[in-house]
Parts: sequence; C-alpha cells; structure tokens
Amino acid sequence: MTQAQLQPLRKLRLGAFIMATGHHIAAWRHPGAQADAGVNIDHYIELAQTAERGLFDQVFVADSPGIWHQGDRESFSRQGRLSHFEPVTLWAALSAVTKHIGFVATASTTYEDPYLLARKFASLDHISKGRAAWNVVTTSAENVHGNFGLDAHPDPALRYERAHEFVDVVKGLWDSFEDEAFIRDKASGVYFDPDKLHALNHIGKHLKVKGPLNIERPPQGHPVIVQAGSSEDGKELAAATAEAIFTAWTSLAEAQAFYKDVKGRLAKYGRRPDQLLVLPGISPVIGRTEEEAQAKWAELQALIHPSVGLATLAPFWPGEDLSKWDLDARPPYIPEPPKGIHSRAHVVLELARRERYTVRQLYEYLAGARGHWVVVGTPVQIADRIQEWFENGAADGFNIMPPVLPQSLNEFVDLVVPELQKRGLFRTAYEGTTLRENLGLERPASRYAEPQAKAA
Amino acid sequence: MTQAQLQPLRKLRLGAFIMATGHHIAAWRHPGAQADAGVNIDHYIELAQTAERGLFDQVFVADSPGIWHQGDRESFSRQGRLSHFEPVTLWAALSAVTKHIGFVATASTTYEDPYLLARKFASLDHISKGRAAWNVVTTSAENVHGNFGLDAHPDPALRYERAHEFVDVVKGLWDSFEDEAFIRDKASGVYFDPDKLHALNHIGKHLKVKGPLNIERPPQGHPVIVQAGSSEDGKELAAATAEAIFTAWTSLAEAQAFYKDVKGRLAKYGRRPDQLLVLPGISPVIGRTEEEAQAKWAELQALIHPSVGLATLAPFWPGEDLSKWDLDARPPYIPEPPKGIHSRAHVVLELARRERYTVRQLYEYLAGARGHWVVVGTPVQIADRIQEWFENGAADGFNIMPPVLPQSLNEFVDLVVPELQKRGLFRTAYEGTTLRENLGLERPASRYAEPQAKAA
Ligand SMILES: Cc1cc2nc3c(=O)[nH]c(=O)nc-3n(C[C@H](O)[C@H](O)[C@H](O)COP(=O)(O)O)c2cc1C
Ligand SMILES: Cc1cc2nc3c(=O)[nH]c(=O)nc-3n(C[C@H](O)[C@H](O)[C@H](O)COP(=O)(O)O)c2cc1C
Repeated sequence: MTQAQLQPLRKLRLGAFIMATGHHIAAWRHPGAQADAGVNIDHYIELAQTAERGLFDQVFVADSPGIWHQGDRESFSRQGRLSHFEPVTLWAALSAVTKHIGFVATASTTYEDPYLLARKFASLDHISKGRAAWNVVTTSAENVHGNFGLDAHPDPALRYERAHEFVDVVKGLWDSFEDEAFIRDKASGVYFDPDKLHALNHIGKHLKVKGPLNIERPPQGHPVIVQAGSSEDGKELAAATAEAIFTAWTSLAEAQAFYKDVKGRLAKYGRRPDQLLVLPGISPVIGRTEEEAQAKWAELQALIHPSVGLATLAPFWPGEDLSKWDLDARPPYIPEPPKGIHSRAHVVLELARRERYTVRQLYEYLAGARGHWVVVGTPVQIADRIQEWFENGAADGFNIMPPVLPQSLNEFVDLVVPELQKRGLFRTAYEGTTLRENLGLERPASRYAEPQAKAA
Repeated sequence: MTQAQLQPLRKLRLGAFIMATGHHIAAWRHPGAQADAGVNIDHYIELAQTAERGLFDQVFVADSPGIWHQGDRESFSRQGRLSHFEPVTLWAALSAVTKHIGFVATASTTYEDPYLLARKFASLDHISKGRAAWNVVTTSAENVHGNFGLDAHPDPALRYERAHEFVDVVKGLWDSFEDEAFIRDKASGVYFDPDKLHALNHIGKHLKVKGPLNIERPPQGHPVIVQAGSSEDGKELAAATAEAIFTAWTSLAEAQAFYKDVKGRLAKYGRRPDQLLVLPGISPVIGRTEEEAQAKWAELQALIHPSVGLATLAPFWPGEDLSKWDLDARPPYIPEPPKGIHSRAHVVLELARRERYTVRQLYEYLAGARGHWVVVGTPVQIADRIQEWFENGAADGFNIMPPVLPQSLNEFVDLVVPELQKRGLFRTAYEGTTLRENLGLERPASRYAEPQAKAA
C-alpha cells in the first residue's frame, strides 16, 4: 500500500520557478525563449496565466539586491540574468491579471528594512486578495553589501540571528490592526476601534521598530512564509518560521533525509509536520518520446558558449585560468571543495573524481539548473519521478524549474499536469481563494487576539 | 489677447490625486464614497480607468511611512485614512489594467534606502512601459522616525541635504546600464556590452552606494521627478531636480507669485522654465447648477463629526481642550501661528481674526481638502477658474483632488473635462505612450552617454 493510499486527501503542491528566460544557463539563446524576459511584462503575464491555467499553487522568482556577476568579461557578456524586475512590483502587476495563483517574492532580511518590507508584503496581500508569500532569504551573494553602504557581507551566523528577529518583527507589524478593527459604519461615523490597534514597540539586538503598520491585517493574516536556506542555521529558521521550504536535491535518498530532518525540527517549536511543506526543485526537459527529450536536452547543451560553461567551474579552481583547458579532456587536477561553495555543488567534484567527467561534461552538468535536479524524459517518466518522491517521504510538492521560458512551462502544463491529474495526485480545480487555502495552510491568529479567538 | 492665444500649443496637464475615499475629511461617510477604499483594489482600478477615460496625464497618492494620527481617541476612531496600500505596489497593479495613464508614487528620501528605491521605481517604469514618476518627499510627519529605529525626526535642513544627495544617487543608479547596453543576439550568444555598464561608486556625506543597479535603464531614461515641498529648501530641491511640482494655493495672486518664484530658480541650474511644470491642487465640488453644487458641499460638511473637526483645529491651540468650546461661537482667543504648521494653514487664523469665523466655520474651511483650494460650482464655473489660473501665469496644469471617491472623479471626467476640451485647453487623445511624452518632458540622457549623444 502506497503512502498516497494511506493519506488519500494529500495533494501535490506545485510552484513554478519562473526565472526570466528559464533555468538552463544558455536558455536565452534558445528559439523557445524570450531573450529580454527579465524586463518584459507581457512575457511574465503569459507565464503567470499559463501557470494558473495549469492550476499551480504559486509562481516564484529568486532575487538578490545587486547584480549577478560571475566570470570574466567574455562570459559576463554572454549571461542572460543581468537585468530584471524587482519581485514585489512584478507580482503586484501580475496579481491584477490573474485570479487564483499565489506569488512568492524573495526579499532579504540582511539588506531590507523591516517596516518597509512588512508594508509592501501586506500591500501585495491586499492587492492580490490573499495570494502573497515571502521567501525569506539572508542573501547569499557576496557582492551586494556595497550597495547598502556596508564594508562587508555579514557572516552567516549574524545574518540568521538578524533573520529570526526580522521575521518576528514583520509578523508583529502585520498584526498591528486586529482582524475586526475596522467598523466603517457610515451612519454612526465610527471608522475603527482604537483598542484593536497595537504598536509593536520592538527593541532587539538588531532592530528597533515602533509601529504600528499603516495598513490593516493582510487577508491571509500573514502572507505565507517561505524559506530556502539549507545550512543548519537555515533549517532552524525554516523550522521556527517557514510554512514552505524550497530545496535542491538530485537523489531520492538525499531528499528523504532532508525531508525527515526538517520535519523533525518542528516539534520543538510547537509545530506539526503538516505546517511546513517541503518543495524540492525539479527541472523537467519534456519530450513526447524519450528521444525527443534527449534531443531537446542536447540542443540546449550545444548553446553553451565555453566561456560561460567555464565560468560555472571557475569557483572550484580558484586562481586558475580555465580558458587554456581542453574541454574534452579531464580537468588537470581535482581540488578539495573550496569554502563558501554550496554543498550541492560539491557533487561536481565527485563527478570529476569518480565518474571521470571531462571539463565540458562537468559544466554541462551544472548548466541545466545550476546543479538542481534535471529530469529528461516523457510526461509519464517525469510524472513517475514526481510520484516516487511525493509518495516516499521526499517531497510535499515541487518547485518546477522550466529550462526554457515560456516554452517549457507550456509543455509542463499541457503534458505533465494532465498526467498528474489522471493519477489523482494533483487538483483539477482550485480549492480556495487564497494561497493559504490552496496550500492547505492555516490562517495564523493575531498575536493580540484573545486566547479563545486564537483557539477557534 | 490671452496668453493661450500667444502659445497656442500649450496644453493643460491634469493629474488626479486619488486619495482613498476622497479629500473631504468626512468623505468616507458619504453615500458616493467607497468606505474601505484604502485597501480595495477594485476601487483603485475603477479610479485609474476613470482617470484614463478622462485623458488625465497621471494619478497620484500621497504617502507617509507610518500611521496618520491626529486628535484624541474619539476623533481618531472616526478618521478614514488609517489603512492604505503602499503606492509603488498599488501602481504596479494598476499599470497592468491601464494603457496610457502615468503613476506618481510618493517615497521618502529620509526613510527609504536609495538602492531599493531606485530599483523599485525602475521596475515600475519597465512594468508600466514608461509611465512611472517619483514624488520626492522628505516626509513631513513627525511620528514615523520610530518605525526606522531613529530617536527623532531629522530637522528639515538635514533632510533636504540628504534629499539632494539621494536624488543624485538614484539617478546615477538608473543610468547603470547605458540605453544601448543590451544586444541579446541569440546567434552570436552575446547578451550585452560590459563597457556600457557602470558602477556608481558613490561616497557622500549621507550615503555610500556602490552599484550598479540590477535592472536596465528605465524606458523613460529616468521616471519623472515630482516634488511637493514649499519651504525655501523645498523650492530649491524642485528647481534643481524636479520636472513637476505639486503645490497648494487658494488665491490667484499667491499662485502667481509661487509660479514666478520657482520658474525663476531654474536658470541657475541650467534649466529652462518649461522643464518644470507647476501643478496646484484644486478640489472641485461639481453641480449641474450652482444650487446643486452648494447643496452637495453642505451635505458633505454636515457629515463632519465635531470631534473630527476640532482635531483639525487642535494644532493651532496647543494644550487647549477644544471639546468644551461652543461650535457656533468664535474661538475664545486667537493665538499666534504655532511653529511647525504649514503656512497654508495660517489662513485659518486670519479667517478667525478678520472674518470672525465661528469654530464650526473654521473647521469646515479646513475640512474640504486640508486647506487646499476648494471650488464649488458648475462645470463652466470650475473650468473658468482653471482657465484663469492656467492663462495667467499661475499654473501649467492642476492636481485634481476629488472630494469624494469614486463619485467626484466621475463627475469631473463626465462634466468638466468636456468643457475644458471644448475650450481647446485640454487634449482629446493621448499624444504619446510614456508619461514624459504626454507631459511634454524630454527623456534625460544618461550621465555616461557620449557628449554628442547627450546633445542629440
Ligand atoms: C530554490 C532555491 C531558491 C533560492 N533563492 C534564493 C534567492 O532568491 N536569494 C538568495 O539570496 N538565496 C536564495 N537561495 C539560497 C538560499 O537562501 C541559501 O542562501 C543557500 O541555500 C545556502 O544556504 P544557507 O544560507 O542556509 O547557508 C535559494 C535556494 C534554493 C534552493
Ligand atoms: C499636493 C501635495 C502633496 C504632498 N504629498 C506629500 C506626501 O505624500 N508625503 C509627505 O511627506 N509630504 C507631502 N507633501 C508635503 C510636502 O512634501 C512638504 O513637506 C510640505 O509642503 C512642507 O514643505 P517643506 O517640506 O518644503 O517644508 C505634499 C504637499 C503637497 C502640496
């Protein structure tokens, strides 16, 4: 008996990670990609409406408050990720031309201000009528502190300490007005009840914020909290605060271990396992036949300019001039994993060592979706893998990372979604009107609500 | 011969200042008002589409990064301005459901971060395809510093000093990529020209910002810069940087003096008078007959709860318990104008002294639009006043402040706009596609452009 049979009501959650031209490193060169996607609003409207047609729970973009810079001048000039919308403004616009889909915006606890952040997410939640989510990141990029007058990127422990305090402050600000604060009785002239307005008066180690917020409680109580860190500190932050976690694994066993790990951390915060959804990334390369899928994949890999490919490897061989290497030979030596590189990427060195990959094979491995899980196959094969992870304690759903946009998202919606529905794994209509309702997450009570109201 | 005949091509600019339920202090209680306007997206969609139907250049909302709080508990509970959208998210949403109208968002140089601000306005300009404007304010509210961890509101001179530096940094960030930086040639694989990317490397008295911005140059080069300060410092900031200025006068003579003053300050910054548009506010109460207009005005005034009216007067009589006063008698004494109150409001003390206004008459004077110019009359009478100011060196256009929303904006578009068009004062179709094109403002060259390109 499969786990799905034991829990017949458990439905797969699907998010679309719709990063500009797509997740493959050479995506922008593909005929199926919109080359100026990062600042093309019509492109994003099409993506959001496609994802909504496919009944996705949410769309997501990653973010960093600075420029993405990697490699030398040659490879830099060939990268398609330089110019893009700010997530919250983008989602606000898209919420006006969609009805059901949720919007996950990434924003940094290290470089943003808590009052302004609380306010813009509350505003987005009202504008979208309850479809906003915040992907809480501490910002991994090492090169953005200068944009904020800082001399260095704060170290991870400090960043995560501030992140805990920051999330708590933001939630407190969202609770400034109780749910029933507004009366708006034209006849009596009473607009609201001042007893239901609360100043936060927070004074902490990193932040000092008086409040109250100048916008009423969001329709969802709080926008959904999402998290994407995978260090110990990152997992603790997720266990304490997050309702969904994005993660990146390429094998079932690793994904299962991670799933068990983070779900196991919830009890000490008084939380149940179903209050945190684990959503690994998957980048599906879809063909009607296996041959077609493999041909598509090869077509994409052939678009990688060697300088761009080598730039993805450069961080593993610091100080080395990779442009002199023979692409079709093995790297001249295999280093120890350098510090500061994500553990996901260490797989590359394993492949170099054990599988004797050539230089070109190595960068092609990373090119798919920066080391995220790539599955090349037919809709049935892709649905098989999704079902396998979903039913075996590795995932509550997935963050779909289309290699080429808009093309690959269309293919997923037209070919894979029906297959998942046929298997009874995925919805055939939206269940609710807010993102929380669709994700099956509770609406949090206000920290100022009466205990009875809280329990109700 | 009127000035309009001498300058046949000069057209009136119109903005709609669409503050939630409307500008009258008791607007929310009126049957023609949307009581929950501040967080009602459908309401704002209707307003923006109405303004666009009326061929307005732009819509505008004021803003403060904190709660608007005035008066005692009783009057506080009766004020309808407490909970509202953040402007940039609101405009992003509305840009997706409109085609022509421009969006002026207020944001503070005192409390926001320049990198994040530059980014969100650039994003809004791309999302709206060139329809964004920034109303640069230093924040007048005394009670918001606590939301940003500060112990006091910085004094005006310091705020304006920072504002000059802040605007310069933001413009520099918008220029990070030159206009022709992006090539996006799928065949060759070259995405952009790194020589056309510039880091700002700003180190100033108030700000330290490295750059570059992570979004390409806005469609308008820079979003339109708007300013609304009326102190000496405010006017200097406008002369140095602004392309439109909001202002508040109730007599032609004052408006003419202000117009001449600010236009006269431009030359020393190497600017021409037509590079700064002066847009006074006007709150029109429209009736098909004069009697109907007066009846509407009286209906609105009757909705003011005395506690709310007295709260507008309280700042003039500090320390006094106004609730004990007889509303239909004169105030017991007339004080000197207290410091920190805008000169516009001093008119109230003049009215008390010279015109022997009662307490009720005094607060009713302020209630219309917080002391802005209220004109009660027929469409012809209102068009007369607009034409008079426009043709006599007092205004390049107006910021229309409807007393009740949505009702009064509909009336203006249906009744006054046709009258202005009949007189040849106002457009009958949009001239351009960007806000700059409609306002007749030049697209600024990048600070990094070649001198030839700059001159062209
Ligand atoms: C799907 C996914 C999306 C992510 N998005 C972002 C992002 O938008 N911005 C960011 O700074 N980091 C992002 N991260 C990185 C994490 O926030 C985190 O920095 C990284 O996984 C390293 O973990 P740690 O911060 O816990 O050490 C993302 C990670 C994953 C798996
Ligand atoms: C039409 C209009 C709109 C304004 N909007 C704002 C606003 O949204 N936020 C704000 O802090 N101040 C706003 N102000 C106030 C000015 O920014 C300024 O603080 C005030 O006029 C006093 O001038 P000063 O700052 O030059 O002393 C506005 C003023 C006018 C006339």
